[in-house]
Amino acid sequence: MANEIKRQGWMFIFSAPSGGGKSSVIKRLLAELDDLVHSVSVTTRAKREGEVEGKDYYFIDEDKFKELVREKALYEYVDSDFGPKYGTPKGAVDKLLCEGKDVILDLDYPGVVQLRALAGDRIKAICFLPPSLAILRQRLINRGTDSAEVIEKRMSQAEKRVKECVHYDYVVVNDDLDAAVEEAKAIILAARAERRILCGLDDFVNQVVEKK
Amino acid sequence: MANEIKRQGWMFIFSAPSGGGKSSVIKRLLAELDDLVHSVSVTTRAKREGEVEGKDYYFIDEDKFKELVREKALYEYVDSDFGPKYGTPKGAVDKLLCEGKDVILDLDYPGVVQLRALAGDRIKAICFLPPSLAILRQRLINRGTDSAEVIEKRMSQAEKRVKECVHYDYVVVNDDLDAAVEEAKAIILAARAERRILCGLDDFVNQVVEKK
Repeated sequence: MANEIKRQGWMFIFSAPSGGGKSSVIKRLLAELDDLVHSVSVTTRAKREGEVEGKDYYFIDEDKFKELVREKALYEYVDSDFGPKYGTPKGAVDKLLCEGKDVILDLDYPGVVQLRALAGDRIKAICFLPPSLAILRQRLINRGTDSAEVIEKRMSQAEKRVKECVHYDYVVVNDDLDAAVEEAKAIILAARAERRILCGLDDFVNQVVEKK
Repeated sequence: MANEIKRQGWMFIFSAPSGGGKSSVIKRLLAELDDLVHSVSVTTRAKREGEVEGKDYYFIDEDKFKELVREKALYEYVDSDFGPKYGTPKGAVDKLLCEGKDVILDLDYPGVVQLRALAGDRIKAICFLPPSLAILRQRLINRGTDSAEVIEKRMSQAEKRVKECVHYDYVVVNDDLDAAVEEAKAIILAARAERRILCGLDDFVNQVVEKK
């Protein structure tokens, strides 16, 4: 019977400085929670080996990207003059939300701003913070994938990200992966219990009362 | 370092029809979560054997109760002309909230309405529902503490409670105790991660940035 209360899905925006441990949290959440999926972005960059169309990205060309922007078919997009463009396709996400799925969007603060404007009542924005920038620097060094120069660039971006956390709905300090996963999971489960998204609640109330 | 973000406490209002399993959920939550306490009400009813002043209730007389109401020293109160009066003392609850403790209040919908008016930004109201009124009736019968007449009275109150659930922040269908506890715990943990109650966040951001 509990399953008979239908609900609309949420868009959960996950932001973090590079090295903030967000990817590990998302991987665990997708494995451990039902009805939770990762949004698939459109991008103008070339497909890399092993990437799958519609799973990793929707690979589109510049003209198609411009068309999507013009038709307001993206919830948010990053349109840099240099480098590839990225965006979140409205249609694909809306389909998932209508099915009652929650959708994780992996975005920076400009994405939060765009989504707040277009779908403010459908999003929960979570900022993952490292315990300190010193620890973040150490994590980036330990990861061993970036040059010293790239690490410095990431650190200066990280400082900006940390300052932006005051604009989010939730702040999770990622000191310990298990604790961060538990906290993120709590945010998702609590959102699912919010009365205002339980679109079948009136029917449920009638059912409960009638079946007495 | 994560502990250095201070936060204000929440008032979590738990409502349910009698027999909705709320007491079992609260007991488990108090045992399993830190910094969570049950509010102690004032009452004009006589102390029963085994009850402890300041733990079960603050036992006060009618004059003192009237004084508390007059001085607006109660967050909410039930002032029936017949039967004992009950109320939630502001001072005691505020002290706990200032210490960063979350406070569980066991109230019906009129209490939610009063608290929304006085401290709307400090409360999260959760309504626990039985899967159906038929199941609720069975639970009351199995409990074996009420006469048939009392059970009928509780059932008619229950119908009212169920209808009121559309005014709450969260709805938890209590089909299975473990699942209901997990959901209630998620609501509490998520509330604790809400950015707007993290009163030490600016300091934390400065610390993180300075310690890079």
